[in-house]
Amino acid sequence: MESNKENKSRLRKQFDFIEEIDKEKLIGRQTYISDGIRKENDAEHAWHMAIMTVLLSEYANETIDVLKTMTMLLIHDIVEIDAGDTYAYDEEGKKTQRKREEAAAERIFGLLPDDQKEKFMSIWEEFEEGVTPEAKFARTMDHIQPLMLNAKTDGKSWVEHGVALSSILRRNENTKEGSKELWEYAKNNFIRPNVEKGRIINDESL
Amino acid sequence: MESNKENKSRLRKQFDFIEEIDKEKLIGRQTYISDGIRKENDAEHAWHMAIMTVLLSEYANETIDVLKTMTMLLIHDIVEIDAGDTYAYDEEGKKTQRKREEAAAERIFGLLPDDQKEKFMSIWEEFEEGVTPEAKFARTMDHIQPLMLNAKTDGKSWVEHGVALSSILRRNENTKEGSKELWEYAKNNFIRPNVEKGRIINDESL
Repeated sequence: MESNKENKSRLRKQFDFIEEIDKEKLIGRQTYISDGIRKENDAEHAWHMAIMTVLLSEYANETIDVLKTMTMLLIHDIVEIDAGDTYAYDEEGKKTQRKREEAAAERIFGLLPDDQKEKFMSIWEEFEEGVTPEAKFARTMDHIQPLMLNAKTDGKSWVEHGVALSSILRRNENTKEGSKELWEYAKNNFIRPNVEKGRIINDESL
Repeated sequence: MESNKENKSRLRKQFDFIEEIDKEKLIGRQTYISDGIRKENDAEHAWHMAIMTVLLSEYANETIDVLKTMTMLLIHDIVEIDAGDTYAYDEEGKKTQRKREEAAAERIFGLLPDDQKEKFMSIWEEFEEGVTPEAKFARTMDHIQPLMLNAKTDGKSWVEHGVALSSILRRNENTKEGSKELWEYAKNNFIRPNVEKGRIINDESL
């Protein structure tokens, strides 16, 4: 089957984007994977959360569009190819994060055909704003997945960074907006045991 | 919000599975990521293909359910946590692959609550059988993604393994069943230039 000229150009743009985002596999995060030997990268993190969404959407406070939420989670860190990962507790880095990420979104999503660029920009913005049921649930996934891995690795990343419970609770002040039930589970199974074991600095009541 | 006992047990099973599949990040593949320095792992591969599916489903020969196809791609390699990755051109390994993967599916998907175990087993089987439009398209993604990365890295993995065009074409005999247009694109942009440059052994006409 011969492609017509318009389609060839469209496909070329799509593959330009698909090849470019391969770089997300090199964007490191601060979370250790469950063997505790190395840290995970953004692509692995996104893969993990997409599967979590398929399995856990039943606990969303409001009904969510699962496909949209998965797509949001799969693409939301692509901006870090240019902007880098900003650690959740890096207050200095967070000051310039928004501006760096907007420029990155423009360049990287801009590789796509216009309609798909608009779609991905819009989904990424929706995640950033955190207002819709899908964005709220996606953020719940984005916060709970590292809590789970940190707990699984005996709090390794928390200990290394000397993280306090108050920081974790501030970081997670909206986590319950996506799913009250998952936030309760995370508190009781991932956070509380590590406070009790002294791996999280106990400076606030849970 | 208090969870009732049934929900706690269900959630525990779901998180047991979610924590277990973290190991997929350690299952290496033979494909180099685009910087050519290291090879990718199954989780990265799955993430990449899920996004490709969002962008490229418009080229499917038959209309596909995008959510189902993405889920299929996200979970189809989980069996390799127990069974290991079998390289596409490893004829010996492929003889025992099916049996190893079935046992793995039973154990790993078996961590989930029954309804979700059945769902994932069924989607995984559907991928393996390769009959439905979703499975055909997923297999097209599964074949084209490494062709793309091999081309991007100047055929590094092909050269290291001394791969012949006839092997690639045999491996890809069903790739067009998911999308004729994407197979044409892959032949012309990923395979042909590397045959011409001698990075794929030229033992058959393309």
